[in-house]
Amino acid sequence: MKIEIITIGDELLIGQVVDTNSAWMAGELNKIGAEVYRVTTVGDNRTDILNAIDAAVKQVDVVLLTGGIGPTKDDITKNTLCEYFDTKLIFDQDVYEDLKLFFTVRGREPDKLSESQAYVPEKCTVIRNPVGTAPITWFEWDGKILVSMPGVPQEMKWMMTNEILPRLVDHFGRDLFILHKTFLVKGFGEAQLSLFISSWENQLPENIRLAYLPSLGFMRLRLSVHGKNREEAEHLLSVESEKLRTLLGEHIFSENDVHPAEIIGERLRKNGKTLGAAESCTGGYVSHLITLIPGSSDYFKGSVISYSNEIKQSILKVGEAALKDYGAVSKEVVEEMAKGALSSLNVDYSIATSGIAGPGGGTEEKPVGMVWIAAANKDSVIVRKYYFGLNREQNIIRAANTTLLMLLEIL
Amino acid sequence: MKIEIITIGDELLIGQVVDTNSAWMAGELNKIGAEVYRVTTVGDNRTDILNAIDAAVKQVDVVLLTGGIGPTKDDITKNTLCEYFDTKLIFDQDVYEDLKLFFTVRGREPDKLSESQAYVPEKCTVIRNPVGTAPITWFEWDGKILVSMPGVPQEMKWMMTNEILPRLVDHFGRDLFILHKTFLVKGFGEAQLSLFISSWENQLPENIRLAYLPSLGFMRLRLSVHGKNREEAEHLLSVESEKLRTLLGEHIFSENDVHPAEIIGERLRKNGKTLGAAESCTGGYVSHLITLIPGSSDYFKGSVISYSNEIKQSILKVGEAALKDYGAVSKEVVEEMAKGALSSLNVDYSIATSGIAGPGGGTEEKPVGMVWIAAANKDSVIVRKYYFGLNREQNIIRAANTTLLMLLEIL
Repeated sequence: MKIEIITIGDELLIGQVVDTNSAWMAGELNKIGAEVYRVTTVGDNRTDILNAIDAAVKQVDVVLLTGGIGPTKDDITKNTLCEYFDTKLIFDQDVYEDLKLFFTVRGREPDKLSESQAYVPEKCTVIRNPVGTAPITWFEWDGKILVSMPGVPQEMKWMMTNEILPRLVDHFGRDLFILHKTFLVKGFGEAQLSLFISSWENQLPENIRLAYLPSLGFMRLRLSVHGKNREEAEHLLSVESEKLRTLLGEHIFSENDVHPAEIIGERLRKNGKTLGAAESCTGGYVSHLITLIPGSSDYFKGSVISYSNEIKQSILKVGEAALKDYGAVSKEVVEEMAKGALSSLNVDYSIATSGIAGPGGGTEEKPVGMVWIAAANKDSVIVRKYYFGLNREQNIIRAANTTLLMLLEIL
Repeated sequence: MKIEIITIGDELLIGQVVDTNSAWMAGELNKIGAEVYRVTTVGDNRTDILNAIDAAVKQVDVVLLTGGIGPTKDDITKNTLCEYFDTKLIFDQDVYEDLKLFFTVRGREPDKLSESQAYVPEKCTVIRNPVGTAPITWFEWDGKILVSMPGVPQEMKWMMTNEILPRLVDHFGRDLFILHKTFLVKGFGEAQLSLFISSWENQLPENIRLAYLPSLGFMRLRLSVHGKNREEAEHLLSVESEKLRTLLGEHIFSENDVHPAEIIGERLRKNGKTLGAAESCTGGYVSHLITLIPGSSDYFKGSVISYSNEIKQSILKVGEAALKDYGAVSKEVVEEMAKGALSSLNVDYSIATSGIAGPGGGTEEKPVGMVWIAAANKDSVIVRKYYFGLNREQNIIRAANTTLLMLLEIL
């Protein structure tokens, strides 16, 4: 089945909010063999919404709308749909009961504005929304389907998972089977990797597509296979995956599209080891990546964010000599930070970062983007110097990812 | 001038990458008075790219393409543009020199694949790209403009800022003046805020639009004013802003659309005070938000991420009694953490968090989403309990933002 996603909201067109919904929806739709043909973003504007729907129904079987159905005045999607389908709003008792319940469990009464959510288009199937106040409206005509759902990510995700995806599978079945596999690769830039594997890439069959997805600190290489059924797709994928493994060997550090922090977590849990961090230029981002993983408290004991030299000395026991002789951004200091973390946090493994995130603070000798990174355990320590870019946020993320990859080397 | 943004890449349609480019571009385009009419995302597919361009030029003056111009085989935008504009690729010596320089400064030789970037469409203006290997191509015909630029965010941002935006202003001037002002509001949900200010909202003139933008932990209320010139827009905006201030009073904690971490930084710098953090459930995210701000090392000395009780005791000096009697997620412990941070980090202000981020670890008495937060200085400490949701990442972000808002109360 072919799908278009239409995201609605002025905030998306003036750059105040990033649309994360369509990426998540596309990923889930792919899993049921649906292809997203296009994503279109329009403002809270009657004509633009109508035009977007017109253009979409010409191309696809299913149109999924998110956003613009809140209780506030700027949301006009519901009325615009009534116009498109030549119908009117009617009061829905069930939706009203859900609404009352929604407020009751939160110890409140539904306000007049929220009550307006109980009015729904007459010519549609109403899908009740247990996680929010705006119901989903499902329209079917001439073999096409249009669904309007909330733009609030957690509501959209719940309704997609529990109502919309199952109904789409019931309605269309799975005409095409799509499998994706993503290899996480280190040690190459995009062009170098492409050259290195070009002979293999050029012999890929028609129904396999390859995409290069640069992350900050590593590359994601995605194989997409289209098959008539699961067996065909799985066979093709395993054949080409094996060839790629032979080509890239150690450069592949994962065959699941998971963040390095998740791989680290699995290994530490398996070996019953603990981890701690000493962060300077990354300012807590390494710890954040580690603690985003559910259950990370099983192996992650904590960190010292030593943004000041004083804390490098007082808690991490970095020697005054190293700081005076080499400066905070140096091989010697980052190594002492890693060792200090091992003892003061009492952990089996530690990582440490010290660098110039920018935009200020750079010198001839230590420019913005220069970062020292260490990964250590009781027996060994790796220390390396990296030169990243000029963008503060990107330097922080790139340094954090690179730190986790270095830790993987000794795990 | 009316603009459509077309983002190109299969990875955007299978949900592997979130499109952050168009939001940033829209924000910058707004600043020069340009209106983004629509954002369209298509795959690396000839027909879909051609259809998207066709549909766009019917509606707008300017079409901005990002992505699909890398050196690798999956990128076909350049050839598709040659087809659309009925032209061919020619070798560009200047681009080739830039390419060689790009690699030389990185101590490498341009590889064959990267050299292909020196071939550009004959019928276009080539804008050289000093931050990457893919040049920008600028097409002009029948009063329309189409620009194709890289999808790599840092390259796209550099080219937009230094080349494309200035050229668009030269070409079109500023036909319409748009001003946005965003109020950051605490203490309301979306519907409650809307009811509270409905009388004011309903009297807003036609050329002012209001949008409710819920963040995790606070609300952003955006006023957008369209005027014939700066004076008209500024006058309208100041009149309505004044009415809103009278209505919301203390609920408004900022009138700039900046993150609370930036407000905190300004105040600390102004007062020459220092800040430190003791984080448990937020796992370093509060420190990350603080250190994302350039120059934060002037006032932020560091943090202790005490994910384990052991570190709460060893470094933050939390008493064994409090941990035994009340548990790590308690008023007593989070208060001791904040006080411990003041002394062990030797700072003027501190914040502390301890809660159940989820999905595991919840109990009847301390459910997932329950978080204790403290903000302290030498004379006073505020401690509060919050109940957030069930999503781990959202709980972390919401708790971190709420922590920064609490700190603002005592700054």
